Amino acid sequence: MPQISLSDLNAAAKADFVAALANVVEYSPWIAEQLADKRPFAGINQLHAALMAAIQSAAPDVQLALIRAHPDLAGKTQRAAGLTAESTAEQNSAGLDRLSDAEYAAFERVNDAYRDKFGFPYIVCVRRHTRDSVLHDFEIRLRNIAKTETRRAIEEIGRISALRLDQLVIADDKLKVHGRLSTHVLDNHIGKPAAGIPVELVEFSALGDNRVIARAVTNADGRTDQPLIGGRPLPIGRYELRFSVAGYYAERNVQLADPPFLDEIPLRFSISEPEGHYHVPLLVTPWSYSTYRGS
Amino acid sequence: MPQISLSDLNAAAKADFVAALANVVEYSPWIAEQLADKRPFAGINQLHAALMAAIQSAAPDVQLALIRAHPDLAGKTQRAAGLTAESTAEQNSAGLDRLSDAEYAAFERVNDAYRDKFGFPYIVCVRRHTRDSVLHDFEIRLRNIAKTETRRAIEEIGRISALRLDQLVIADDKLKVHGRLSTHVLDNHIGKPAAGIPVELVEFSALGDNRVIARAVTNADGRTDQPLIGGRPLPIGRYELRFSVAGYYAERNVQLADPPFLDEIPLRFSISEPEGHYHVPLLVTPWSYSTYRGS
Amino acid sequence: MPQISLSDLNAAAKADFVAALANVVEYSPWIAEQLADKRPFAGINQLHAALMAAIQSAAPDVQLALIRAHPDLAGKTQRAAGLTAESTAEQNSAGLDRLSDAEYAAFERVNDAYRDKFGFPYIVCVRRHTRDSVLHDFEIRLRNIAKTETRRAIEEIGRISALRLDQLVIADDKLKVHGRLSTHVLDNHIGKPAAGIPVELVEFSALGDNRVIARAVTNADGRTDQPLIGGRPLPIGRYELRFSVAGYYAERNVQLADPPFLDEIPLRFSISEPEGHYHVPLLVTPWSYSTYRGS
Amino acid sequence: MPQISLSDLNAAAKADFVAALANVVEYSPWIAEQLADKRPFAGINQLHAALMAAIQSAAPDVQLALIRAHPDLAGKTQRAAGLTAESTAEQNSAGLDRLSDAEYAAFERVNDAYRDKFGFPYIVCVRRHTRDSVLHDFEIRLRNIAKTETRRAIEEIGRISALRLDQLVIADDKLKVHGRLSTHVLDNHIGKPAAGIPVELVEFSALGDNRVIARAVTNADGRTDQPLIGGRPLPIGRYELRFSVAGYYAERNVQLADPPFLDEIPLRFSISEPEGHYHVPLLVTPWSYSTYRGS
Repeated sequence: MPQISLSDLNAAAKADFVAALANVVEYSPWIAEQLADKRPFAGINQLHAALMAAIQSAAPDVQLALIRAHPDLAGKTQRAAGLTAESTAEQNSAGLDRLSDAEYAAFERVNDAYRDKFGFPYIVCVRRHTRDSVLHDFEIRLRNIAKTETRRAIEEIGRISALRLDQLVIADDKLKVHGRLSTHVLDNHIGKPAAGIPVELVEFSALGDNRVIARAVTNADGRTDQPLIGGRPLPIGRYELRFSVAGYYAERNVQLADPPFLDEIPLRFSISEPEGHYHVPLLVTPWSYSTYRGS
Repeated sequence: MPQISLSDLNAAAKADFVAALANVVEYSPWIAEQLADKRPFAGINQLHAALMAAIQSAAPDVQLALIRAHPDLAGKTQRAAGLTAESTAEQNSAGLDRLSDAEYAAFERVNDAYRDKFGFPYIVCVRRHTRDSVLHDFEIRLRNIAKTETRRAIEEIGRISALRLDQLVIADDKLKVHGRLSTHVLDNHIGKPAAGIPVELVEFSALGDNRVIARAVTNADGRTDQPLIGGRPLPIGRYELRFSVAGYYAERNVQLADPPFLDEIPLRFSISEPEGHYHVPLLVTPWSYSTYRGS
Repeated sequence: MPQISLSDLNAAAKADFVAALANVVEYSPWIAEQLADKRPFAGINQLHAALMAAIQSAAPDVQLALIRAHPDLAGKTQRAAGLTAESTAEQNSAGLDRLSDAEYAAFERVNDAYRDKFGFPYIVCVRRHTRDSVLHDFEIRLRNIAKTETRRAIEEIGRISALRLDQLVIADDKLKVHGRLSTHVLDNHIGKPAAGIPVELVEFSALGDNRVIARAVTNADGRTDQPLIGGRPLPIGRYELRFSVAGYYAERNVQLADPPFLDEIPLRFSISEPEGHYHVPLLVTPWSYSTYRGS
Repeated sequence: MPQISLSDLNAAAKADFVAALANVVEYSPWIAEQLADKRPFAGINQLHAALMAAIQSAAPDVQLALIRAHPDLAGKTQRAAGLTAESTAEQNSAGLDRLSDAEYAAFERVNDAYRDKFGFPYIVCVRRHTRDSVLHDFEIRLRNIAKTETRRAIEEIGRISALRLDQLVIADDKLKVHGRLSTHVLDNHIGKPAAGIPVELVEFSALGDNRVIARAVTNADGRTDQPLIGGRPLPIGRYELRFSVAGYYAERNVQLADPPFLDEIPLRFSISEPEGHYHVPLLVTPWSYSTYRGS
């Protein structure tokens, strides 16, 4: 996606400004128009705050129109008819473009139930979610009253627009929209970082098709060169880190049992804070291991 | 199975003694006949030692006949024709009576390869094994020379007969043929044993149909009332203990994330010593855990 | 001390019964006289409950006389004049017979302050305490009102008498008056109990003269043959367990740094429940260790 | 101490260059003179390598004179007569200026024994040592033959001069002469870094006067703002980190025993690599803790 600097946005002709930000909020260029008159913005956080203020101060029927401008989640018909490029990319990020028939049916059911109850589509910032957590969120929110859901929908629009701004606009400051998942393997058998340990990150799904979403090998410092997830929100959900330690110890001529007491070590945990830092280390010997939520 | 005391065996008429021990070694009553004349036995260990001495001092062709008296492992035809009750129970204990077609084919292939190379059936004490470890053992032993395999076959007959004697004969001493797998959950959040934690023990299979082989709930001391495996050898293989901790903490009103950072905790390990004691504890808080091979 | 069985006590002449239990409560044979008429006792717990009932149902002036029959803690004059043998042994158990001048002065000061405020001596079951915890208890109790302290004094008399009964009377049941402190060293470097590790238990004192109160070497199971403290209450106080691990690893030819990263490992903890079970294990490698309150 | 840049040194008149580096090797300006002719130096590592080459290629009697130009360690007479400012600062860094009489006597004894055996003073880079480790090093080296000690003396002169150059010369590259000791406190009770924990670092002495050499309080990330030791070599020796955790938990309204099971937690360890990175973290709950050599 082409990016634009905040200073260019501040200096742009109004029409260009509105064109650039048109889809930051789904099909609602009136917001960009309001923002154009509030320029200049000192930073991207100020820009986003102004965007939220514009929405929150809009009349109730305008807010409702805004909410209704959003597509159904995973709606096949709407996908066929065409979403904004932004919506498509976001939905795909959570795997909503490759649902099984059973999953598709599950989404359709909750979408319909939600729309029946509230009269508008269920809105969620899908880049902060896995399929599992979206379905869980649906359940929780279906129990709310309409007023609560209007507020929640606007909150989610805020999160969606923050992520879109983060991708679109280059500024000196940063919106706090990214999380980070990292690991570290300490070999307590020799008191050193464990280098060369293969690591897999698996995203769990209640429906059973767990997916490997990252693979890495620990470096000389026992870490992975890149965070396992970084530069984006951490999708709420259940995960498993898998470390292959038996081969590592065998190469170092450590006496192991046959089969080795520990071989593939799974660390299973959940992420609940998409903007948080999750550090999930492994302290290991051939006969013991520990993990904890670190920092 | 009816049991008989060692003192009764010592006092029995020779014919009764031979009848009682006839199948301790598969289809080979000549061994029981030799043993009858060595009575009395001070203990079951002495009885088993005499049995092994009888086999080891037999002429090579007698040893070979003894080995050939054993059935193929998981052989469908032979099962149909009828094994000794002992063999049937033992093979079933390792799940050899409920192999998938793919597993059955794998066993048949290695059985045939082994018989082709050595001229006698592959003998293994299956109660010390899982399906996975039998197939692994097969591979290792297929590389041996015939002389080594004759020795190995007799060793395995020794293990099989020790287990059969252990089940049949009541004595003051015990044969060292049992292992034990136990666990213990310590709640480091409150410094007390964790009571009421559901635990599952899963036996892994390379072919994929992992099976839950024990379920328990921790008692007031954080342990299970019975060992997870006890009173028998521990089958060599890969296992996973699964502890459900989120429900435990939720009931104690501990503040958890949503979803909880830790919920089902899997501890994956292998057993390599069927007669050993494996203590695999869990030290846990809502945010950390450790395990180790304990004692 | 000579012991007597509960059945003998139940059958004894009244005078003999009273003589046997005369000093179970300091200088107060009237209690034993009342108990004599309540015989037979089904167990030692029932006997002790009857003793407490006798005290609690006594008239206030009788209770006060009972409290006043107790000596000052660590009072030099009274020790010179002579305490009951029981009091002497108990005070010595907490080291009150070998106070430094500074400690003696500290005890005299609080004794006097307590007696000035309440009109009776401070009573505490010293076998449940260290010098530090007695002084801390003094401070807390000095803040109470007289009514509370009368109740607290009777509670402590109950604890003192329970311990005296426990030492004097042989019965089928047991009073719950003992605690236990144990340890266990697991060598996570080899996945086995660590045998041959020297262990010291040190009792800390705020006044600085920390004392080694137990020494042991771990056995083949990584435990000490006897509990570090057992068969008596655990004195409330601060302790340190010290494990010498560098020599252990050096003997096993583990490559260590010079000086070794870990050599003497101190685990510092406090005991607050004299009748509790404290298990304080050490999980260790040459480069890491853990401890926790176990069970 | 005034610093000078490497480029200025490269450009300086020879006399100024020699004056600037005169004391980088104790009382031996001939080395600086040789170095002056080797200019320019691309970096400080190259400068130090040239310095070592000059020493190593010198004639044996010149090397011996160089060694003899060094003062006795902790020699009172020589200190009175005056050392170079560099030697004084270095010896003080290891506490050699405030030895007890017993320590002074110990140093004098080994100094004399060494000089008697080898005919030259014992040279060691004291900034890499504690008093304990110097005395230990003395013992080891006294057993060597003269040739070995000549080599060892030159090695130590190399380390001393590297540290002097590091303090004196500003360059783009760095000599690898510094180590780092850091810690980190993770509160596994809440799954977050533990902020506000007081930490003390104590240097142990075999002679008993352990000294607190750093104090800090953990910050929001559970770390200390500065390394506990940094920007210098880590003196070889025994240390204890002490963390006060009971107050931390009490402030957070965690239910604790009285006295708390854990209060001051000591982590005792040794440093053997002065240029290494020692990370010694504490993972803690009110009922458990772990540490390990991290990275």
